[in-house]
This record gives sequence, C-alpha cells and structure tokens, in this order.
Amino acid sequence: MILFLISIFPVQINKNIEPNDDLSKIIIESLQSNNLQMCDNDIIVVAQKIVSKSENRLRDLRDVIPSPKSIRLAQFHNKDPRLIELILSETTKIIRITKKHLIVETKHGFICANAGIDQSNVSDDSQQVLLLPENPDISARNMRKSVLDISGKRVSVVIADTFGRPFRTGQTNIAIGIAGITPLKSYIGMNDEYGKKLLVTEIAIADEFAGAAELVMGKTLKTPVAIIRGYNFEVRLPEVDDEISIKTLLRSEHDDLFRNHNNMIHYSD
Amino acid sequence: MILFLISIFPVQINKNIEPNDDLSKIIIESLQSNNLQMCDNDIIVVAQKIVSKSENRLRDLRDVIPSPKSIRLAQFHNKDPRLIELILSETTKIIRITKKHLIVETKHGFICANAGIDQSNVSDDSQQVLLLPENPDISARNMRKSVLDISGKRVSVVIADTFGRPFRTGQTNIAIGIAGITPLKSYIGMNDEYGKKLLVTEIAIADEFAGAAELVMGKTLKTPVAIIRGYNFEVRLPEVDDEISIKTLLRSEHDDLFRNHNNMIHYSD
Repeated sequence: MILFLISIFPVQINKNIEPNDDLSKIIIESLQSNNLQMCDNDIIVVAQKIVSKSENRLRDLRDVIPSPKSIRLAQFHNKDPRLIELILSETTKIIRITKKHLIVETKHGFICANAGIDQSNVSDDSQQVLLLPENPDISARNMRKSVLDISGKRVSVVIADTFGRPFRTGQTNIAIGIAGITPLKSYIGMNDEYGKKLLVTEIAIADEFAGAAELVMGKTLKTPVAIIRGYNFEVRLPEVDDEISIKTLLRSEHDDLFRNHNNMIHYSD
Repeated sequence: MILFLISIFPVQINKNIEPNDDLSKIIIESLQSNNLQMCDNDIIVVAQKIVSKSENRLRDLRDVIPSPKSIRLAQFHNKDPRLIELILSETTKIIRITKKHLIVETKHGFICANAGIDQSNVSDDSQQVLLLPENPDISARNMRKSVLDISGKRVSVVIADTFGRPFRTGQTNIAIGIAGITPLKSYIGMNDEYGKKLLVTEIAIADEFAGAAELVMGKTLKTPVAIIRGYNFEVRLPEVDDEISIKTLLRSEHDDLFRNHNNMIHYSD
C-alpha cells in the first residue's frame, strides 16, 4: 500500500546568509554534519529570504529617496515612503490599494503584498529590507546545478515564499521559483476511476511542495530549508531546465476573473 | 537537526464508499491490513468525495427540475440546467459568472467553482453528481471521535477538496473541514530571529496539510486518504472540538479586497 511515502525534513542553517554565499554548499554541509546525504530526486525547498540574501538583495532604507508619488501613497498607508518607493520599483502594476494593504503585480508577475519585500527575519537593523530575487527560476536552476556539481545528485529546487490569498485568511507558502520538476501536474487525457474524463486536470504541485515544506520550516527557527524525499515523479534532465518555469503558474490578467472583469456576464434575477 | 521529520503516506481504499459507510473503520482496517496502526497526533487527510459519498450526498440529475433561472444561466454556460439548479441550491451568492466559469459562495462560505459539485470520480453513471458535505467540520469531528472510539488514538482530521484560485493556474487541495487542530498557526506576539516583531502572523496550516497530502493521493489512484505523521503540535482535547472550525479560514466579504471594493482607495498618477 505504501507506494509513495513522502518524508519532509528541515535543514537547519547555523549561519547568517551573506551576499555570494554558496547556498547549495551550505545546505549539503549542514546535511553532512548530521550524517545525511542529498539523494537523487530530492526536492529542496528553500525560503526566499536566504536566496535573496545570498543574491545581495538587501536594501537600506537610508539609501532610498522617495518620489512624490511614494510620499503621497505613504500618507494613505502610514508606511515609510522609502519602503513604498522600493515596492514601486519592483512593481509593474498596483492591483489593490487600501489603507492597510498594497497589493501589486511584481516584475516577475506575482500578485502579492508589498512586492514581496520583507522586513521580518532580515536583519537586526530595522532600516534593512529584503527584495525578492531578481529571477527566482534562475536562482533555482543555479542551485540545482550547483548541487549536481558538488554532490553528483540530481535534485529539484523550489524557492518558496509566504503569500496571502483572496477569500481565505492566513498565509501559505507558495513557489516563486522552480527547477528540475514541472510545477503543474497534468491529468489531461486521463480517466477517473470510473473511466470518465477528468475535469480537474492540473494540480499546482509546486505550491503544494512549498506549503508542505512550511510545515517543518516555521518562522522563528533557523530552518529556511526543507527536503521532500520520496515524491514519485520523473526527474527532468538538465537539458530541459529552461523549459521549466514558475511562470507556468501565473494566470494572465486576461484569464483572471478577479483582475479582469471584461469577460464577465452581467445578469439580473 | 531532524526535530520535526514529517511522513506522509497514502491509504488505499479498496471499496466503493456508499451511504452510511463508517469511514474511520474502513481507514483503520485498511491500515491494519498493511500492518500499520493509527497513532496519537496523526493528521488524517480525507478527500471530500468519500466523505460526501458516505453522507449520501450523491444526486441524480434525472431527479432535478431546473428553474427558469437555471435554464437561463445554463444557456450562457453550455452546462446542464439541472446541474446549474443543484449548484444554485448549494449557493448563497454568485461571485463571478462567465461563459466558462460559475464561481459562487457556498452555504458553507467557500468561494469555489460550481459550489464544489463533482462529476469526476463520482460514479460510472454520468447522471450522478456529488455535493459537498453539509457541514465538513462536523464530518471531521465525527471521524475524529470515531477513530478515538475504535482505536483509542487521538488524531486530527482534515477534509480536503481541490479548488482553483485567483492569480495562479492549476488547483491545489485545501481544507474544507477540520477537527482536532486549529487551522491557523499564529505567530502573533512572537519575534523573528533578530528580535523583531513578526509581520507574517498566521499560517493556514490546514491548507498546507491538505496540499501536502495531495502529493501522495493523486486523482486516478484509489487513495482518497493520507496520513501526516510527525507534525509538531499540541493535540486539542475533545472538550474544545467545537471551538475548532474551518470558518476561521474564511475571510469575510468585507475584509476581502477581491470581493469588496468599497474599502479601496482610488488614486491617479
């Protein structure tokens, strides 16, 4: 019966990650110090924060000069106008703006609060904030390649961040970058148990990996990495790495019922 | 390092679930036939479909007489007006309606397509469809109690269903009912690694359990149940069972930036 037992274990990192740190090396060493090895087909879920730190995405608010627009928006929010300036610099479109919330579409295409800029778990200097990686897919690909180079193991990598969502309270970890495994598992063309064509055709497994890993990572422990072992899938070869992207999970504005209202039918009772 | 190793394993059910089947008994027997036991603190994730089947929520479209409104809406959709009639009977509010999609708020407060009514993995009779359980929290509480009665083990139960979401393609499994564990893990009042107050304060762990379990459950295998073992949490005692509800995860329309636009600030560049 137990065909696909999955194990998820946290990897503690006893080091403050700094620019140009080799995360793959640090993770593998952390495993080795606990007599553990990376394995083929492991899915390494890495918190966005340490990726951003290693990629030198810390910014000092003291270096930011807010524009008039940022100053004006900051008045609505009671937020630091310099933070607003940084948010807008990472933003292609403001999606929702209220007194409490600034939901934007980032340059990457993510819809999230404050362009994903973090102030928690960043630094003991309250003026330091952390931007998302410039291209989390490339971050994931580089880590996957680096793990292969160091350990000889073909792993997948998911970069995860904590996002809110419409309709439901609380946040969950979702995937913002991926390498080595396609983010959508497709059931297109498959039949259900009764031979009927499946209507639910695609599962966003990348987001399920990110959420599952969160269960062992937490927010207050030094565990920004988790390894998911035993997931049953075909490992993609490095040759197709650039065909795999988190962009597969980004719904276009045109197709999004909660951004684009043009395709709605208005009806009355 | 490995403080909180989590294991997730699928439970195969070699039986078509029928009304009044005792799911807890069936799951425990399936475990025992593989020399496995339920354990204290296990989180049992159960697909909504088998819960609905055991609760006699199958409906036959031949028994449904569509209203004029359902007939009119069906013309937009190229859907069966009798299915629309059932959807509306489970609905308190239509949230979005397009030629392809009918997104509603269900009686339970869930925002989902077609009021969560399933046509896949339901029956070999294409006229049979399956409604959500009437009260999935109560379904979960009953299972939790039944597992305690049969096995003496204090488990948690999550009822999971596959929902789409705004902004991102693909679907994920989320929780629609829960017992034994609070659906939100709160970090309110806690500090980050640097002693700063955490801004991300609540994680919707119930949805992360549901998504994690999906990774072993699949859609075409007879594995509608998964057990998550090793999650580190305080088990709630049965006395407080009715304080725990999936309603904790339902954002009110008032607080939802993507349903209620009244609290938006309009600005111009």
